[in-house]
Amino acid sequence: MRLRREAPDPLYVQLKDTLAQDIHAGKYAAHQRLPSERELSDKYRVSRMTVRQALLDLAHDGVIYTRVGKGTFVADPKIDQPLRMVTGFTQDTRARGSKPSSRVLEARVIPATPEVAAALRLLPSAEVVLLSRVRFTDKIPLAIENAFLPLALVPNLLKHNFAVTSLYHVLQTEYGFTLHHAEQTIEAALATPREAELLKISPAAAVLRMQRLTVRRDGTPIEYVLSAYRGDRYKFRLHLPAPSGAF
Amino acid sequence: MRLRREAPDPLYVQLKDTLAQDIHAGKYAAHQRLPSERELSDKYRVSRMTVRQALLDLAHDGVIYTRVGKGTFVADPKIDQPLRMVTGFTQDTRARGSKPSSRVLEARVIPATPEVAAALRLLPSAEVVLLSRVRFTDKIPLAIENAFLPLALVPNLLKHNFAVTSLYHVLQTEYGFTLHHAEQTIEAALATPREAELLKISPAAAVLRMQRLTVRRDGTPIEYVLSAYRGDRYKFRLHLPAPSGAF
Repeated sequence: MRLRREAPDPLYVQLKDTLAQDIHAGKYAAHQRLPSERELSDKYRVSRMTVRQALLDLAHDGVIYTRVGKGTFVADPKIDQPLRMVTGFTQDTRARGSKPSSRVLEARVIPATPEVAAALRLLPSAEVVLLSRVRFTDKIPLAIENAFLPLALVPNLLKHNFAVTSLYHVLQTEYGFTLHHAEQTIEAALATPREAELLKISPAAAVLRMQRLTVRRDGTPIEYVLSAYRGDRYKFRLHLPAPSGAF
Repeated sequence: MRLRREAPDPLYVQLKDTLAQDIHAGKYAAHQRLPSERELSDKYRVSRMTVRQALLDLAHDGVIYTRVGKGTFVADPKIDQPLRMVTGFTQDTRARGSKPSSRVLEARVIPATPEVAAALRLLPSAEVVLLSRVRFTDKIPLAIENAFLPLALVPNLLKHNFAVTSLYHVLQTEYGFTLHHAEQTIEAALATPREAELLKISPAAAVLRMQRLTVRRDGTPIEYVLSAYRGDRYKFRLHLPAPSGAF
């Protein structure tokens, strides 16, 4: 594939698309080193500046990553995670054939902050269980989840070891909860320094922030979760029906 | 509200939560200047470092913004955009009572790239219409959308002025298309320099990247859209039903 100097797209965009297509087509495998800037510059007959801009854009998109002094490498393809129903990290990870695990950062009873009390429809300062975890897949940290649950609904929740146990599994089997739906929001933000440290990503990296309020069949909110998913590892997938009578 | 030195949360987290709640409760209005670092430090009896970390986190979350030499200001609350059905920017903006407009960056017929051809199920290099726009609400740039449509399905599409016309409106009224559904992905990334320039955001800011494939009732893909929404201005909202028979 040759770059077209007369084309309306800038050369760096053409080079970026070409490299992205090669990676997508499997011409370069995950974690394989890409040709150097000089080699790419020679091969495509473009300036080093053009190569650099194309690589910078690909790194922005999470398609490649750079190791200082080592070169540029192909990133793992992102996890393509359906976001159509209320499922948990453990279930999502197992459905992909991978092994979930967690590091518990905090597991304790605290008075609800105004935000948490309002979300869970509790009286101000009602007691809630806070379960804060880093979630791993095959030992790679992928997300941070801070779950808040009304203590009155889940007494003794903290006797479980949530490093190895699924919270949703416990809610179902021990408390007999039947989930009805969740309201969830999704945002993009820069990682905070602490998030970057826990997720082992660059402090300048983007994360997907989610808020989820999980509601039981009787309408009672049972869980409010604030999570941060690695932007370089996750792509969420939705199915949107057409509005009735419209396009 | 006093910060609790004996509490398990670090002081900067408590201060951040307190300020966020004050903003949320309307104690500080949008674009109002927050008290200075020194004033906050005196008021809450914490160090300037603690104040700085709390403000940095709030800026990360898009709750406040900084003007160099002027201080720290309350950001507009994010647009809370339902993402439940296939709707367009024009329709979404009008539903909020705001005025949509667009700046057309490109509107032309091009040969499909392999990515676009694969998405739209076209032969390689089939001709597609590219419509690239910056989307504004009340004159503020909020998103960039690059839409690709099979030329064979929408001949003469480009006779319309898409600075003022809704693409979906034209597809419905002029071509008689009935939309069935869309498959959409959502990711977080850093803005590219060009995106930052077009959206008038910091080059280090986070954006939400979407891919949408819109499908007609007869199963034909009619539109493939790549868009970037400002992370500091958008929060998307989903409704997730429980999986049948589970949790």
